[in-house]
Amino acid sequence: MIQAGIIGATGYAGSELVRLLQAHPEVNIHTITSQSYAGKPYGEVFENYRHEAFICEEENLAEMAEACDVIFLALPHGVASKKVTPEILAKTKIVDLGADFRLKDINVYREWYQAEHDAVNLLDEAVYGLCEINRAGTAGKRLVANPGCYTTCSILSLYPLVKEKMIDLDSIVIDAKSGVSGAGRGANMGVHFCETDGSIKAYKVASHRHTPEIEEQLSYAADASVVLSFTPHLIPMNRGILATCYARLLDNYTYEDIRAAYMKYYADEYFIRLTKKGVFPETKWVKGSNFVDIGFAVDERTKRVVITGALDNLVKGAAGQAVQNMNIIFGLDETAGLTMTPMFPA
Amino acid sequence: MIQAGIIGATGYAGSELVRLLQAHPEVNIHTITSQSYAGKPYGEVFENYRHEAFICEEENLAEMAEACDVIFLALPHGVASKKVTPEILAKTKIVDLGADFRLKDINVYREWYQAEHDAVNLLDEAVYGLCEINRAGTAGKRLVANPGCYTTCSILSLYPLVKEKMIDLDSIVIDAKSGVSGAGRGANMGVHFCETDGSIKAYKVASHRHTPEIEEQLSYAADASVVLSFTPHLIPMNRGILATCYARLLDNYTYEDIRAAYMKYYADEYFIRLTKKGVFPETKWVKGSNFVDIGFAVDERTKRVVITGALDNLVKGAAGQAVQNMNIIFGLDETAGLTMTPMFPA
Amino acid sequence: MIQAGIIGATGYAGSELVRLLQAHPEVNIHTITSQSYAGKPYGEVFENYRHEAFICEEENLAEMAEACDVIFLALPHGVASKKVTPEILAKTKIVDLGADFRLKDINVYREWYQAEHDAVNLLDEAVYGLCEINRAGTAGKRLVANPGCYTTCSILSLYPLVKEKMIDLDSIVIDAKSGVSGAGRGANMGVHFCETDGSIKAYKVASHRHTPEIEEQLSYAADASVVLSFTPHLIPMNRGILATCYARLLDNYTYEDIRAAYMKYYADEYFIRLTKKGVFPETKWVKGSNFVDIGFAVDERTKRVVITGALDNLVKGAAGQAVQNMNIIFGLDETAGLTMTPMFPA
Amino acid sequence: MIQAGIIGATGYAGSELVRLLQAHPEVNIHTITSQSYAGKPYGEVFENYRHEAFICEEENLAEMAEACDVIFLALPHGVASKKVTPEILAKTKIVDLGADFRLKDINVYREWYQAEHDAVNLLDEAVYGLCEINRAGTAGKRLVANPGCYTTCSILSLYPLVKEKMIDLDSIVIDAKSGVSGAGRGANMGVHFCETDGSIKAYKVASHRHTPEIEEQLSYAADASVVLSFTPHLIPMNRGILATCYARLLDNYTYEDIRAAYMKYYADEYFIRLTKKGVFPETKWVKGSNFVDIGFAVDERTKRVVITGALDNLVKGAAGQAVQNMNIIFGLDETAGLTMTPMFPA
Repeated sequence: MIQAGIIGATGYAGSELVRLLQAHPEVNIHTITSQSYAGKPYGEVFENYRHEAFICEEENLAEMAEACDVIFLALPHGVASKKVTPEILAKTKIVDLGADFRLKDINVYREWYQAEHDAVNLLDEAVYGLCEINRAGTAGKRLVANPGCYTTCSILSLYPLVKEKMIDLDSIVIDAKSGVSGAGRGANMGVHFCETDGSIKAYKVASHRHTPEIEEQLSYAADASVVLSFTPHLIPMNRGILATCYARLLDNYTYEDIRAAYMKYYADEYFIRLTKKGVFPETKWVKGSNFVDIGFAVDERTKRVVITGALDNLVKGAAGQAVQNMNIIFGLDETAGLTMTPMFPA
Repeated sequence: MIQAGIIGATGYAGSELVRLLQAHPEVNIHTITSQSYAGKPYGEVFENYRHEAFICEEENLAEMAEACDVIFLALPHGVASKKVTPEILAKTKIVDLGADFRLKDINVYREWYQAEHDAVNLLDEAVYGLCEINRAGTAGKRLVANPGCYTTCSILSLYPLVKEKMIDLDSIVIDAKSGVSGAGRGANMGVHFCETDGSIKAYKVASHRHTPEIEEQLSYAADASVVLSFTPHLIPMNRGILATCYARLLDNYTYEDIRAAYMKYYADEYFIRLTKKGVFPETKWVKGSNFVDIGFAVDERTKRVVITGALDNLVKGAAGQAVQNMNIIFGLDETAGLTMTPMFPA
Repeated sequence: MIQAGIIGATGYAGSELVRLLQAHPEVNIHTITSQSYAGKPYGEVFENYRHEAFICEEENLAEMAEACDVIFLALPHGVASKKVTPEILAKTKIVDLGADFRLKDINVYREWYQAEHDAVNLLDEAVYGLCEINRAGTAGKRLVANPGCYTTCSILSLYPLVKEKMIDLDSIVIDAKSGVSGAGRGANMGVHFCETDGSIKAYKVASHRHTPEIEEQLSYAADASVVLSFTPHLIPMNRGILATCYARLLDNYTYEDIRAAYMKYYADEYFIRLTKKGVFPETKWVKGSNFVDIGFAVDERTKRVVITGALDNLVKGAAGQAVQNMNIIFGLDETAGLTMTPMFPA
Repeated sequence: MIQAGIIGATGYAGSELVRLLQAHPEVNIHTITSQSYAGKPYGEVFENYRHEAFICEEENLAEMAEACDVIFLALPHGVASKKVTPEILAKTKIVDLGADFRLKDINVYREWYQAEHDAVNLLDEAVYGLCEINRAGTAGKRLVANPGCYTTCSILSLYPLVKEKMIDLDSIVIDAKSGVSGAGRGANMGVHFCETDGSIKAYKVASHRHTPEIEEQLSYAADASVVLSFTPHLIPMNRGILATCYARLLDNYTYEDIRAAYMKYYADEYFIRLTKKGVFPETKWVKGSNFVDIGFAVDERTKRVVITGALDNLVKGAAGQAVQNMNIIFGLDETAGLTMTPMFPA
């Protein structure tokens, strides 16, 4: 059994990690930590775990590195880069669900996060763990930067068309919608039920930090610089992301041409499900699962392709992909512990 | 008092018309009709009207035309064009909340609606009642085509920039989101609570019938052909539309340049509220009201402007604008009966 | 015009007061205050008021008492009793939406609030402003304790049967359900969207402070001591309270007998709407209005009557009843400013 | 592997059965049938199963009885009793999720269902499959009547106190609240999003058919006739039932006395989780799981105990308990396939 530690287990992503690892056939949850709830039974913070004996512990990363084969970090940005060191990495594997090790270009990091980075020396080693695209680079590695929720959805929705140079890179618009759990488990007026229910808004227009992450990865795929528009929206629902992506086609591609491109890259991907022609993804169909559903239409009038991708922000957008990365690191079946059917209705 | 009739009063738009006209200082509701509920007290269909004595009547348009100064039609598309005739228009004013008289180009109608039109002879006379843009053409007229919900939101969000030729007409993308009342008051699985709550989807991608309506009106504004991408989404909330609009700027316009364009056209518009810089509309702030809130950001990285517009689909997107059109037709204060503050939380 | 002041205008009840008073034909909003947002435009706190010029001011009760004919207090419990004095009451009328002046029995207050009361001398003068029951005592008075939301719904649902001695006073159970706005506009985990949506819970079981308020008023009606079970529940919706009340019938009363009791007391009450036999209130039908809908069934098997009452907690349960009390105090038509039809769907 | 068949797999309970059986380590889903969707891929009806090859088949019970070890019936009431015969039962086990075999007293059935029963001869054989109470009677049996959702929650919440004769049987009131999936997967106005969201109502007051089911079972426990008040409510959420139960205590029992009664019966029950003192169940903490959470308070003022029980209506209230019954019938570990942690937030 793989011994796993979770640091920051009392956020929504951390809680979802516990749920997934608990059901994973090859994993034992060795330690879970929480700054806010240290000493408290986990089942009193999240009463869905009332039947379990987990206790929130104080974090001691050095000790955990000795005892755990893998440690998941579910922390606010800027924290992981202060904790992870070559010494830690010499003893354990790290899957970081935060943003610290995602961007390769330190200048881009500085610009979008308005901060220095505390572990620049590890950026080269860190693997960007978007499994379907980068799994070869992840196997056996020590430090995986788990992609963001919006980014996973956006990149996977666009990747085949960018890679195959079928779309105008200057024309990409991503209009993304997220459930409220994406905002995290902190009390603030922005997530008050009465301020959120029955309403929709765009936020961080032209300034969301997932933008450079999407651009960096799509630029690798394109082997050219990608600059795009990304707009996140808050939706009155708990889980789920839908990314609606627009791009100008570079030729008179048909629906079948586009489909062939997706099949070329995703035909064997268990977690990516292409919808049938005329059917578009709905977040309800992926809830609680690690699936990404992708559908698209070719609009002959505008010469654009419109792609919609849907995933569960806490699973494929966070904890599920982290487990998938763990599976890859340790050479397990990539779907181990991740084959649950989406729960509907939920 | 203006005597008003409502045909199709037991849909959501019809019900909202009753609510607004009932509170209108210059209007008396003379007749309300319903095909499904004829003979039934209105307060048993919509129990919010339990304290009122309204009865759903059988429709008799000829009689209503004699008795009513204005008749509102809230009917499925294709029905109004069978009912409205020059004889009717000789006796009363018609505000049609459906789609039949919105498109001027009969070929566009045939293509998008896949049907012949039963009153082509009236298309010239019909006024497209987007009040803020076309009020001069509406005063005193007999037949007003009340714009669609998505279209009102989309056109008002983009109009100043199109009119001022500040954006590339080929670059327009409108990603729109609507609450479920936009789907109408009919029982089908698509609006079942369990199929809708906690989920989001795009629908009618590249094929929604509001697309040509938006294009036709923006083409008038541009004095050039506008072809654009429009994608509607279903949001788990009752009311509200948010349209997120993207367009490439034709010059290095600043935020202030863009704002000046909006002010040029909307500075004196009571129902259009520009948000402050950095603030973006939320549908909750317009709920129950006739306001349209508009905000925008200039993205220097992509040379795009991103505009978000929000309105209540049943008010400014339907019944409210219909009342506003009635006010214009009869020369009343345009805001009469429409100055209610949005209800929050709701 | 009546000059009105609102202290604590940036909570949900305060905001609703602004909405109602703004539309009131006989009232001018003279001053609104907010401790948290003093100096800020009201339309930046609640952007539904973006079109208005209101500014949140620092509270200065003495000055307000000079300038205002009536002052509404929307404050946490324990605050109003520190502010209201005979000097203030000599100059203005006070409608207190908080709990401080609701309980007549100071010992009951001490027990349930675990605190001393700072204005015991005013308890006698204070009128319990449940309008339908106590309007005679309110006209012309200076200090009105506006009832709680749960209490208004519960008392009105049970009053005729208690008054007519048709039910066993020892058998009363009130199972009440409230939307989240009842919890107030403060950021805490209990109202986080993800902790609230898609779930229901009971809270403060056998210990909610509205219990003694209901008991005290029903005891007056019964002219006997009423001790009852009251359980509040949190419902994933913004507004609305439904109180399901159970009581043992003291005789073999029929549906018609019970109905006659309700008609005896409520036949002429504009704001109380009895549903038809077999129809039960839904909170959606009263949303945004000052109505209380009441329905009931006689269960011959159990010899119980089951009554359900529904109201909007922010209107009849708070701001609306406060305005109704103001109307009574000043001898206006009791429905002035309160005849809006419920908004549906909302 | 146990070969399982599901008849009526395209309702919500049927779909949940597929989800649970699919993940069950000892079960193979042999056949799923659907009247409405025969011939259609299951993954096109429920797109959460898009990655699966299931096809909806025409029902052929005789053939299925040959091929399947167990058949689950998820059908409207009145249908199962027409299908199940001694011949069928000679070949396979039946777990019926409908109401046909739940009531032992045929007169009670006739009265509440206003219909004759088509398989009176099987009523004796049928086991009422409320596992925690009746598992001894279920092992090895051929026909299990799976309890209703409201009934499971209500009976388990009250059973220990009834059995121990701690409460006045005449004083029981059950105020129950259910998510919308309890209304089934059919299109009707009552489950339209706009008619349901943001609102709460009681329905079938004093007339819901789960009432006699609760009474019959509690009467067995009490060895005396139990007649009680049961009121269901519709809550704007997908899943979950909360039953708030009230009863007069027959003695001055303390919290600890009551707790001891619950522990006596439930201490070893995996699926029943008692909350800590002062903590009350929330449906969110059991969503997607087979758990029943129970909490209570002793109200010394009223001499009542107030118990709240929470479960997921589609799992412990339907499909989960059906699987639990299958486990018992076949002598498997009762928790096999049912140990999933509740999903939160969902």
